[in-house]
Amino acid sequence: MSEGRKPYSEMSTEELEALEKKLKAEYKKMQGMGLELNMSRGKPCVEQLDLSMGMMDVLSSESDLRCEDGTDCRNYGVLGGIPEARELIGDMMEVPYDHLIIYGNSSLNVMYDQISRSYSHGVMGSTPWCKLDKVKFLCVVPGYDRHFRITEYFGIENVPVPMLETGPDMDMVEELVAGDESIKGIWCVPKYSNPTGNSYSDETVRRFARLRPAAKDFRIYWDNAYTIHHLYDHDQDHLIEILAECKRAGNPDLVYKFASTSKVCFPGSGVAAMAASLNNLEDIRRQLKVQTIGHDKVNQLRHVRFFHDIHGMVEHMRKHADILRPKFEAVEEILDEELSGLGIAKWTKPKGGYFISFDTMEGCAKEVVRKCAKAGVVLTPAGATWPGGVDPHDTNIRIAPSFPPLNDLKTATRLLSLATKYAACQKLLEERRAAGPAEVQ
Amino acid sequence: MSEGRKPYSEMSTEELEALEKKLKAEYKKMQGMGLELNMSRGKPCVEQLDLSMGMMDVLSSESDLRCEDGTDCRNYGVLGGIPEARELIGDMMEVPYDHLIIYGNSSLNVMYDQISRSYSHGVMGSTPWCKLDKVKFLCVVPGYDRHFRITEYFGIENVPVPMLETGPDMDMVEELVAGDESIKGIWCVPKYSNPTGNSYSDETVRRFARLRPAAKDFRIYWDNAYTIHHLYDHDQDHLIEILAECKRAGNPDLVYKFASTSKVCFPGSGVAAMAASLNNLEDIRRQLKVQTIGHDKVNQLRHVRFFHDIHGMVEHMRKHADILRPKFEAVEEILDEELSGLGIAKWTKPKGGYFISFDTMEGCAKEVVRKCAKAGVVLTPAGATWPGGVDPHDTNIRIAPSFPPLNDLKTATRLLSLATKYAACQKLLEERRAAGPAEVQ
Repeated sequence: MSEGRKPYSEMSTEELEALEKKLKAEYKKMQGMGLELNMSRGKPCVEQLDLSMGMMDVLSSESDLRCEDGTDCRNYGVLGGIPEARELIGDMMEVPYDHLIIYGNSSLNVMYDQISRSYSHGVMGSTPWCKLDKVKFLCVVPGYDRHFRITEYFGIENVPVPMLETGPDMDMVEELVAGDESIKGIWCVPKYSNPTGNSYSDETVRRFARLRPAAKDFRIYWDNAYTIHHLYDHDQDHLIEILAECKRAGNPDLVYKFASTSKVCFPGSGVAAMAASLNNLEDIRRQLKVQTIGHDKVNQLRHVRFFHDIHGMVEHMRKHADILRPKFEAVEEILDEELSGLGIAKWTKPKGGYFISFDTMEGCAKEVVRKCAKAGVVLTPAGATWPGGVDPHDTNIRIAPSFPPLNDLKTATRLLSLATKYAACQKLLEERRAAGPAEVQ
Repeated sequence: MSEGRKPYSEMSTEELEALEKKLKAEYKKMQGMGLELNMSRGKPCVEQLDLSMGMMDVLSSESDLRCEDGTDCRNYGVLGGIPEARELIGDMMEVPYDHLIIYGNSSLNVMYDQISRSYSHGVMGSTPWCKLDKVKFLCVVPGYDRHFRITEYFGIENVPVPMLETGPDMDMVEELVAGDESIKGIWCVPKYSNPTGNSYSDETVRRFARLRPAAKDFRIYWDNAYTIHHLYDHDQDHLIEILAECKRAGNPDLVYKFASTSKVCFPGSGVAAMAASLNNLEDIRRQLKVQTIGHDKVNQLRHVRFFHDIHGMVEHMRKHADILRPKFEAVEEILDEELSGLGIAKWTKPKGGYFISFDTMEGCAKEVVRKCAKAGVVLTPAGATWPGGVDPHDTNIRIAPSFPPLNDLKTATRLLSLATKYAACQKLLEERRAAGPAEVQ
């Protein structure tokens, strides 16, 4: 589609002025459509939620709610999860069942609790972070806003590290963690990353496992949120399993690995889990047993009775993919059709996960989001993918294609494309005017 | 039953020696019975759990899982709880629905999180406790071990305050909080208290609401765990509602109130909630929205569809009472029959809740628990009802009659009575021997 197209930057000022006029008219027209769409968050759509309605049937008043080892799941107890749920979630997370703890409904809450405990009590005997003058965290950018907000809330300085095709810039990560004891962790979404959708290369994972941080209490926060969330059967990303790799590298305690079934069954009613070395888990259990008597075992049992095993879960994820794939492809198709060859935007083409990362021309992202909002389409705020909500280049926008119905999504993507062109055109004209004031008159 | 009985202390040494021999023989006999019973924790019994099996049927794959305001409970969102659940739980807690937040499955976890946030971030703008040299908490004793363990975990000094017939010793509470800015809170179970089973008097609640603590960030931790957990229809304790009373007294922000449905339906699979002033809730929400996207709304909906409203819940609690009442009465009957008039023990006769508080002669509780354990009956460890697990008088034992079947419970109570007699007899003999060494030979 890009053939024969002239990049905006090569257009004459007159051409750009004519283009601006045309885009303005198109934009006015779309504004008149009275759109009300939301592409701001990675929420499953109704059809995806319908896939899990069977979960409401697997337990009934006739069911035996005891788990395999005879424990009555209806009563108190069993900190860490019932055995069969630990096995199922362990398989999902690619770790042995004794290397994980099952929590409540939210992996974000689990991550928050790790930071909170490190802040108040330290990590495996280290000085609590609240007693230190300075604590820093590395944030892969663009990244997940809710991660950054947790560390920010605890007064931790978020230090951006760029995301490359292969994952975080490991030269920079290695150098930073080796030289600065105040750096205590790094936020990662290693697979189908939020928002870029790409996955860390084997080399990146190997280098992570071999980090030599100055801080003994440094941990990799490995949020494997999209571990089985593929879009394609035949073309999937695969990640080296980080816990095993850390062990091989002689760094068994270096990583906390998180996951949940939020985007497998019902978000908010799933189970979250954390995997780590036995040393880390022991440290965590010391706190956990003060915090709670146990998490929701009936819901754990419900998961096991519904999915049976990892094969049931994988099969279930295929159905999600069948719903999500056309949406991702539609967005990519429209972006290709509307924007390729113009030199004003680029975007990722993920094989899984929930997001497409979209980059406008420098300095245009906020304006694009604003223009979309004014025409009735809510996008994730520009800057959200950066710590503190400030993208220094003002380029990145996270696209979340999952929730809107396909036709709405197509309309929203047309609008995004139009707003991107319009903003780019305006920006270039501004720059021309600033560069050559004589031409302005 | 006590008539005509001679208190142990009035017995001659010869009588005590004969008694010891007899009790020893009885104890040996009970040891031979091969008992394996557990009265250590306030767990509902199987028949109680069966009462809530209908909860597994109220949602099915055919159900509409949208709540009253149209929100799809299957998806992300709604921090603080769905409207109808807030109304139901608000009614249970006797507070308006906008004065509460619904959390996950564990009220203990909610309390932990309050302490944790106060420690890391302070209370409504106050200095975070982690930045203070000294923080203290008042602990009503005997009380709930898990409360004490939370504050202990955060390095907070637990200061015991005696529980009287009317509730905590308010003269002492008033004096302590007014004079010491390092006292930041007090742990209370105001209704059918754990373990004494009695409830705070109207005057006690009024005095709580009118406390003038030196610390602005002082909060009453009002764990109303047994708010609707009556044993009798015609004879119930009623508590002045603390939030309203604090407001009347001009101290609206003074209290955090906690409750859950753990002992209403399935422990570990219920919903927990916290009620407080709007100022407090705003302070809490600032943190909560960093911690999680939302709690399990499907489970909230399940509660509402099962109970419908507070009347359904009250009706349901009557069924619990029908199961628990005979157990409490059996324990009390046996204790009366075995121990009254002997001057070696006293115990409470609660009208609700989950516990009976049992006091041995001074210095005997540990030995009684040990003797029971050696004959196959596990009791809550002596001292557990005191901060740090140390009862300075070594008298208090918490009896949890709910879990064992009635006949087992009777057997266990016989054993407890026997162990109490045996330990008291031994103790008195020891004292006599220590007082007059000539008699030992």
